[in-house]
Amino acid sequence: MYNLLKGKKGIIFGALNEHSIAWKTAVRAHEEGAIFVLTNAPASIRMGDIAVLASQTDSQVIPADATSIDDLENLVVQAMEILGGKIDFVLHSIGMSVNVRKGKHYTDPNYDFTTKGWNVSAVSFHKTMKVLYDKKAMSTWGSIVALTYMAAQRVFPDYNDMADNKAYLESVARSFGYFFGRDYKVRVNTISQSPTPTTAGTGVKGFDGFLAYADKMAPLGNATAADCAEYTLAMFSDLTKKVTLQNLFHDGGFSNMGVSDAVMEKFD
Amino acid sequence: MYNLLKGKKGIIFGALNEHSIAWKTAVRAHEEGAIFVLTNAPASIRMGDIAVLASQTDSQVIPADATSIDDLENLVVQAMEILGGKIDFVLHSIGMSVNVRKGKHYTDPNYDFTTKGWNVSAVSFHKTMKVLYDKKAMSTWGSIVALTYMAAQRVFPDYNDMADNKAYLESVARSFGYFFGRDYKVRVNTISQSPTPTTAGTGVKGFDGFLAYADKMAPLGNATAADCAEYTLAMFSDLTKKVTLQNLFHDGGFSNMGVSDAVMEKFD
Amino acid sequence: MYNLLKGKKGIIFGALNEHSIAWKTAVRAHEEGAIFVLTNAPASIRMGDIAVLASQTDSQVIPADATSIDDLENLVVQAMEILGGKIDFVLHSIGMSVNVRKGKHYTDPNYDFTTKGWNVSAVSFHKTMKVLYDKKAMSTWGSIVALTYMAAQRVFPDYNDMADNKAYLESVARSFGYFFGRDYKVRVNTISQSPTPTTAGTGVKGFDGFLAYADKMAPLGNATAADCAEYTLAMFSDLTKKVTLQNLFHDGGFSNMGVSDAVMEKFD
Amino acid sequence: MYNLLKGKKGIIFGALNEHSIAWKTAVRAHEEGAIFVLTNAPASIRMGDIAVLASQTDSQVIPADATSIDDLENLVVQAMEILGGKIDFVLHSIGMSVNVRKGKHYTDPNYDFTTKGWNVSAVSFHKTMKVLYDKKAMSTWGSIVALTYMAAQRVFPDYNDMADNKAYLESVARSFGYFFGRDYKVRVNTISQSPTPTTAGTGVKGFDGFLAYADKMAPLGNATAADCAEYTLAMFSDLTKKVTLQNLFHDGGFSNMGVSDAVMEKFD
Repeated sequence: MYNLLKGKKGIIFGALNEHSIAWKTAVRAHEEGAIFVLTNAPASIRMGDIAVLASQTDSQVIPADATSIDDLENLVVQAMEILGGKIDFVLHSIGMSVNVRKGKHYTDPNYDFTTKGWNVSAVSFHKTMKVLYDKKAMSTWGSIVALTYMAAQRVFPDYNDMADNKAYLESVARSFGYFFGRDYKVRVNTISQSPTPTTAGTGVKGFDGFLAYADKMAPLGNATAADCAEYTLAMFSDLTKKVTLQNLFHDGGFSNMGVSDAVMEKFD
Repeated sequence: MYNLLKGKKGIIFGALNEHSIAWKTAVRAHEEGAIFVLTNAPASIRMGDIAVLASQTDSQVIPADATSIDDLENLVVQAMEILGGKIDFVLHSIGMSVNVRKGKHYTDPNYDFTTKGWNVSAVSFHKTMKVLYDKKAMSTWGSIVALTYMAAQRVFPDYNDMADNKAYLESVARSFGYFFGRDYKVRVNTISQSPTPTTAGTGVKGFDGFLAYADKMAPLGNATAADCAEYTLAMFSDLTKKVTLQNLFHDGGFSNMGVSDAVMEKFD
Repeated sequence: MYNLLKGKKGIIFGALNEHSIAWKTAVRAHEEGAIFVLTNAPASIRMGDIAVLASQTDSQVIPADATSIDDLENLVVQAMEILGGKIDFVLHSIGMSVNVRKGKHYTDPNYDFTTKGWNVSAVSFHKTMKVLYDKKAMSTWGSIVALTYMAAQRVFPDYNDMADNKAYLESVARSFGYFFGRDYKVRVNTISQSPTPTTAGTGVKGFDGFLAYADKMAPLGNATAADCAEYTLAMFSDLTKKVTLQNLFHDGGFSNMGVSDAVMEKFD
Repeated sequence: MYNLLKGKKGIIFGALNEHSIAWKTAVRAHEEGAIFVLTNAPASIRMGDIAVLASQTDSQVIPADATSIDDLENLVVQAMEILGGKIDFVLHSIGMSVNVRKGKHYTDPNYDFTTKGWNVSAVSFHKTMKVLYDKKAMSTWGSIVALTYMAAQRVFPDYNDMADNKAYLESVARSFGYFFGRDYKVRVNTISQSPTPTTAGTGVKGFDGFLAYADKMAPLGNATAADCAEYTLAMFSDLTKKVTLQNLFHDGGFSNMGVSDAVMEKFD
């Protein structure tokens, strides 16, 4: 503990249960002196344990459907009231593919599911930033982070339409990040995390085998949810003020591997 | 003329008028010995001159709304009948942002417009490939190309939500390209073209100044629509059979410039 | 055969024997109507079969050590005399790591070997372009291509210091390509080819296993030397005039794969 | 001040004077509780003010020519003695082009100068890591950082052969980083910093105009040397343990801009 975020105010989306990256980030942000509100969709609040986290971190939960501008406006207004001022950091950790849930193959989706997943996983980030921007809710040198996955750049067959959603999300980070930087000196980045056995992650087909593969490929092994929380703190802190529009790989080195000795052993 | 596409059969989307990249590609594909059908949305067919092109290239026009699976199925079935067999090449040259047309700023879109633009510009490419894949309509070693723009990687403030749509489109090329390659030896790539004064391009705010900037930055100057037609032929030909999942910059070198001497002159 | 290079004049470096990419490119360029000179280092000429290729393609061999400006000047002057004018295309297919040959591990090189390998594999490309540039030897819209490998971007542990040499080579392509484009409308690109069982390729440790891995990863399988010859012709032809400063992956899609189903089978 | 590096031991290369990024990093690392040795080439020690920094940070200076394995071995052995154990962090901030200094154009270098610059700017990083690796001098979860510049990816005409040297350096970071990660859980990254008016930076031709251009392009403006020191601390800290093989842009967003409104104003 460093008091790295002392006095900083935040909004954290997407803490479902103790496996969530957002959960671990909230716990660590609290330890580092931040105050924040927690938010999630009403259904996720019912399904998960967010009240436990709120209690543990002295924070309030404000339900919000991140695809609803009204809900987001209510969230941002309330957050500023509760926290007593503008927002210094935001974590967007939201993603869901209805096609994956319903077992639809990438080549044969239900396009209504495709639209819904895109809306929840990617457009929600645009809407969140739009509301923050309209309401001038971010502090100068504030930091907005969304979690993403390398399927946005490279093919992981079972990741399905989440690959395309993440590509859209990362583009939104750059596109909106330009205006947020130019107008408010706020930075916007995405963290491209190792496959992580969260509730969301484990829904992907063949996840365990894939986790083992990624772990063997990465020279430092897979980054865990706890590791990701640490890195996210760094991106919220004043140490990283001039980093913006970036997609930051936090993956033990996986993204720049062509092949590792450990993977090659299976092919010799 | 090389007879580069002799005997090849294709589908070309998006030829509006003689300024269109798709138009010039059709003219050149015809010269190189290909046969193909032309398609466009009914409204674009009314607005443009596609009948002239059809006559010039001995080809038929099959109207299709590329967001409609039914229309696409009809298109693919008819194309195979007319051309007498499976398809060797497809050009997807479709893009439209309602937010741009209606003058909505990127930070303040109408989200229905956002959805519509995404559907037309990006999901249409998924749907096109789904229908081709389902109907086993592509020949072995066939080639599918979609046109895109570098705003998918970097910020061009006036490109608005088309940046995000193109990022999604390029992701679809990779995601679907994997299955098309694995199952049918078909390649899928995107060509990331210089800003081009087509009817679509010139709708973007400040386009002329931007064209001049890009031309000064690129060591070979901007690639024209006619240049792009040539490059697209190369990607349809048997010269490029093993290129897939790529986003290919066709831009006179712009994409790998940090700054040129010609641009720096404005800042000295 | 398309007469794709009819009347074009070239210089082809690095054809050792019939397995060489440069060899196959020469054979195909000849079929497509090009005339050219062949060149290689004196030792490689003795070791290989270049005289056979010269006879087969009606071309002359001019020995040149590509690290020697004198040899390169002699080569370029002679080539223009023999071919009767300026040069339209150049293929640089040269690479050699003394550390690999001598079995030195990447973490424990002999730095004299490192310097020699860098000089032969990467600086030779700068020197070749410098001589062509100084002598105004390239035609307008000429094309210069160097072969490279994806180890320049990602880690392949056994590729050793060739990874770093290829990174340097690709940077030289961009850096010199800017001046060649600006001043002479000449394009400069690198082709990043699949692992290929040429004489050079097979020297790398564990090459067979790696070849199998790459083939399973790429949706179209590995690109062969013959495939690469085709692609190189496309890059020499007038179809690709506005492509420059690019590193072009020609690898069956490997470069944009995270994992394939075929690779995952080994981990399930 | 957070005690972010409390108890950590380091080696900092390249602090010439108070404008140096290495200098500012040393000052901040000291404030954050680290102990370290400073090093530079004997000539740079004579030319600069490193004794002042040593005094200010309670550290010792060990001269070392970073192209000499002997000097580096002496440095690493002495550093471990002085600091009382293994090394947690290393900053490589070394770069020099003799061609730039002597006014040689990129297309007409003196190749001995090219070799010397490559050796000093890029091979020195390999040698530094080789010595640290051989001597098992790095702590588990240690962090090695080298400073680089975006000319490694894109063309900045006046950056000359430093572009190619930086490309080689970044490749070395990946190549050696794999073995360091696999064997010792040490991470290796490069920070790609905005153009910075250090003594080295200001030697580049037309530097002031370029600084203004970069500042207008980047939504957050150029990152300063002081900003870079903060970011480097983050990369040394335990917050970033699973980040490796990355090239991290620290540039106010420049790297992902196509064009900004402020730059476009010059072209309208």
